Amino acid sequence: MPQYPAAIDRLMQELMRLPGVGPKTAERYVFSLLRMPKDRLHELGGAVEHLKDSILSCQRCHNFDDQSPCHICRDSKRDQHLLCVVTEAPDLAAIEHTGVFHGLYHVLGGTVNVIEGQGPERLHIEDLIKRVETEKIQEVVLATNPDIEGETTALYLKKALAPTNVKMTQLARGMPTGGDVTYLDEATLTEALNHRQSA
Amino acid sequence: MPQYPAAIDRLMQELMRLPGVGPKTAERYVFSLLRMPKDRLHELGGAVEHLKDSILSCQRCHNFDDQSPCHICRDSKRDQHLLCVVTEAPDLAAIEHTGVFHGLYHVLGGTVNVIEGQGPERLHIEDLIKRVETEKIQEVVLATNPDIEGETTALYLKKALAPTNVKMTQLARGMPTGGDVTYLDEATLTEALNHRQSA
Repeated sequence: MPQYPAAIDRLMQELMRLPGVGPKTAERYVFSLLRMPKDRLHELGGAVEHLKDSILSCQRCHNFDDQSPCHICRDSKRDQHLLCVVTEAPDLAAIEHTGVFHGLYHVLGGTVNVIEGQGPERLHIEDLIKRVETEKIQEVVLATNPDIEGETTALYLKKALAPTNVKMTQLARGMPTGGDVTYLDEATLTEALNHRQSA
Repeated sequence: MPQYPAAIDRLMQELMRLPGVGPKTAERYVFSLLRMPKDRLHELGGAVEHLKDSILSCQRCHNFDDQSPCHICRDSKRDQHLLCVVTEAPDLAAIEHTGVFHGLYHVLGGTVNVIEGQGPERLHIEDLIKRVETEKIQEVVLATNPDIEGETTALYLKKALAPTNVKMTQLARGMPTGGDVTYLDEATLTEALNHRQSA
């Protein structure tokens, strides 16, 4: 890397803590910021500094919100006996965005990753079990990612929740909308065949 | 977009002003920031807020530095008669990083973009002409991008600098290192053939 003035270098280092941001992207962001008026930088800088001042983690479902319980947990119109388990809060946001799910959520806060030594103890699994038992949950939707970590996590959850006898479902596997049978990866096509639906 | 608490929404909006950052990337950044300790957010926020407090635009070459003239303009060991014209400061950084250029720079501050109505008057072209005349520049390297905007800009510079009779060169066009003849785009392969070098 070329030597930059300290203020540029410092900001680049900080930006590189964001996911997927390497030195080139950080550089691009910094030079873009340098072209903005100072007011803009104060807005952005202030928004970062004070991000966590008003954001709480919901004590019930661990979603981020400005209140706890969060606005979803407080919504009595939602199905109180249907619970969707997601890995991270952005997954919850994606599901909310579809508008088809009207139950409650539980954010695990990560996945079980055996290779990286990330066990299930860091995740909000104990209170998930407690919720299933005390809130009379009738169905738990396991909405983990269709990858190794996600499936390991789903498998762990299935075992952990088995004693509660709750009904468990998973997001359907198959062809993504707009996909092309010719170019689909084998694993996806295999799932699409195995889980073929009546036409 | 799902409805987020105000602090998340505000930061997402601010982050979307960065180049290439859409709602999905902004969301990813925000949730990553939410997992960081408050100290980190203060570091990053402060670095953004105070970015421009110590960074100046060099009055001679328009590079960003903590002094003006910048550290390159002040370096008497550099070839004072060789001038490389770049579009933006990050281009200068990329060229410095190669370590093969030992002349001075001139940052235009953008390109001529006829379609978007961005004329040459916003660019540091007048003082480029003045520099070429008063600093006894012997060669101007036009290091604009090999795309339509870059080439339009280079063409404009060639005309603008013609009366000074300075020698003008451009970055070589050809195959990128690691490229594959089979998969090269036609335009690049055409340039590589037209500008073939003696083996």
